[in-house]
Amino acid sequence: MPPATKSSRKPLSYAAAGVNLEDKDAFTEGLTGLMRRTYGPRVIDNPGGFAGLFRLDFNEKLFARNHKHPVLVACADGVGTKLKLAAEMKKYDTIGIDLVAMNVNDMIVQGAEPLFFLDYIATPKVDRAMLTDIVQGISDACIESGCALLGGETAEMPDVYAPGDFDLAGFAVGVMDRDRAVDPCRVEVGDIVLGLASNGIHSNGYSLVRKIVASAGLDLDKVYPELTESRPATRARKGNGSKSAKPLGEVLLTPTRIYVKPILKLLRSYKVKKVIGGMAHITGSGMEGNLCRALHPKVDALIDTTAWPVPPVFRFLQEQGGGVPDVEMRRVFNMGIGYCLIVRPAFASAVKAHLGRLGEKVYRIGRVVPGTGRVIEHAGL
Amino acid sequence: MPPATKSSRKPLSYAAAGVNLEDKDAFTEGLTGLMRRTYGPRVIDNPGGFAGLFRLDFNEKLFARNHKHPVLVACADGVGTKLKLAAEMKKYDTIGIDLVAMNVNDMIVQGAEPLFFLDYIATPKVDRAMLTDIVQGISDACIESGCALLGGETAEMPDVYAPGDFDLAGFAVGVMDRDRAVDPCRVEVGDIVLGLASNGIHSNGYSLVRKIVASAGLDLDKVYPELTESRPATRARKGNGSKSAKPLGEVLLTPTRIYVKPILKLLRSYKVKKVIGGMAHITGSGMEGNLCRALHPKVDALIDTTAWPVPPVFRFLQEQGGGVPDVEMRRVFNMGIGYCLIVRPAFASAVKAHLGRLGEKVYRIGRVVPGTGRVIEHAGL
Repeated sequence: MPPATKSSRKPLSYAAAGVNLEDKDAFTEGLTGLMRRTYGPRVIDNPGGFAGLFRLDFNEKLFARNHKHPVLVACADGVGTKLKLAAEMKKYDTIGIDLVAMNVNDMIVQGAEPLFFLDYIATPKVDRAMLTDIVQGISDACIESGCALLGGETAEMPDVYAPGDFDLAGFAVGVMDRDRAVDPCRVEVGDIVLGLASNGIHSNGYSLVRKIVASAGLDLDKVYPELTESRPATRARKGNGSKSAKPLGEVLLTPTRIYVKPILKLLRSYKVKKVIGGMAHITGSGMEGNLCRALHPKVDALIDTTAWPVPPVFRFLQEQGGGVPDVEMRRVFNMGIGYCLIVRPAFASAVKAHLGRLGEKVYRIGRVVPGTGRVIEHAGL
Repeated sequence: MPPATKSSRKPLSYAAAGVNLEDKDAFTEGLTGLMRRTYGPRVIDNPGGFAGLFRLDFNEKLFARNHKHPVLVACADGVGTKLKLAAEMKKYDTIGIDLVAMNVNDMIVQGAEPLFFLDYIATPKVDRAMLTDIVQGISDACIESGCALLGGETAEMPDVYAPGDFDLAGFAVGVMDRDRAVDPCRVEVGDIVLGLASNGIHSNGYSLVRKIVASAGLDLDKVYPELTESRPATRARKGNGSKSAKPLGEVLLTPTRIYVKPILKLLRSYKVKKVIGGMAHITGSGMEGNLCRALHPKVDALIDTTAWPVPPVFRFLQEQGGGVPDVEMRRVFNMGIGYCLIVRPAFASAVKAHLGRLGEKVYRIGRVVPGTGRVIEHAGL
């Protein structure tokens, strides 16, 4: 295109280029309340500041007694294309929970306590209602995880994101004591693998989920009977089925379970005895790709894939996808187990009961055998 | 669309849905080297771990002597649509520098020393060469800023990002001593505002930049003579002009200047005397929107907009944009000053000389007067 002459063009402004600084500032201020409700006494108020401030030594006892050698633990993660589904359904109040969950669940695997969280939200245009919903979810999940929402960035990029599209990234920082770090070398032959139930698909595999939804022509607003638990015991209890009587879209958007409270409580209750050999957050690449990160090269984890009930949403997607092979399903999805612990056999029942009392559904799903650092999945052991 | 029958469809796999886990894993491993080169002794190696680990107390002296009350300082930021320009030019080796710079320059405003950095890269498809270039820039800038590239997330989202598009977010954590935090209340009437030269546009205002480029039909590969310094003194020195003889695209992609080293050196050299009342990183919304964050409500900063040379790229864009008003230019761009310091008048010359010896171009651009917390820009004072 030939250069336009100067006189033919009106002066361009930033607003004409798609960015309205006043709108953005107003929204940013509106978020302050959602951030403040997550603040504990260790957050230093810094209105208008260039960065968030967090006092590390506020609780002297914490660091004098529990953290002789404090190690900072940091994670970065997004929610993948689950946000695309949220955008399609125009339902934004839970995707922020997923964002925090993906980060803090990774952090507790290291044995760390989450301290604070920051978010990055990129949109084509600031839609205050939508972004407030997103940050509400982030704020809720920060409270649930006991960490402060210390800051964030809202980027308005009309040229990168199509209308309705957006992206989310999250960053979490926590602290642990170096002497109490979880160490894969501690895993021993004979250890028991416990699995904690997931809330469903969590935040991985949504490119495949959405492909299946599109290719099978599924209706996100429809209640599919296959999504209801089909085990006779459940069917017998009248009225209980309503728990699952949600439209497909809502089932798919169920937020990722946050395991922070039960895991930290468990770790604190076994301060002296080292009963936990390792942990894993089951995300992209499934049990096989994540539990192996808790192993050392001389052991395998033998997992009985029949040891827990696979939530109906996975079987439904598998069938609607034209019979996605089991091995592919297990590589992409958590299949009902969102978090794993490897524990000493003598403590397995106690840990299982303890986590049960804390509200988790816990399954004894496998054991550690001599091997080469792999996860081996079998139907029945 | 009606549901397809199962027999008509092949089973879907994650790879068919646009995500190839092997490619992604291979790339992630390839990044390890670029991360390791940024590691100091405080980073704890955690291969295959779920999070990055950073020992806070490794250098006992640091915390015993310099940080009596350590405060963690955290920032999150992106690079805006400058990445769109990088994508158009297929030049990815400096955008990572911008990403780190945007975060660490914010952090040092608080008086904090950067400790570590994490990145989030979202793409439609993993292009190893492109992503390696991006992470190379991030890694270089982390070394320049003295912080460790502790982790990151690469998200492959073919349904959110169009081919060639991508997004970047960064997250930095640093530490400072609570007693030595920069405090806006310290700013006094009579204080001098020093400005540090920017490298050009840095990482803000690119929606407007790109709009001007498109509407004026500018050629990113062309060398425009207006982009060369036009001051007689410069013209007289033959051969010196070649410094600016770059095509427009390269000029626009010049990476954001990182002010960490000179500012931290300066702060360390005035440990006892509190000569610096405040600082500001000049980003989106310009001098007015950022320098005011270093003020308290009883003072104004009076800025002489003729006190420093405006780099030719700004005048060029202003003209090509059909005469963008000065006030709009100053609200969107840094106009040649990327970082400001407010210093005690008795130390202004010493600080200016000190920063000059550290390689910065420093200008005395204004002074603090009684007021209401605003920045007032005038041509001449």
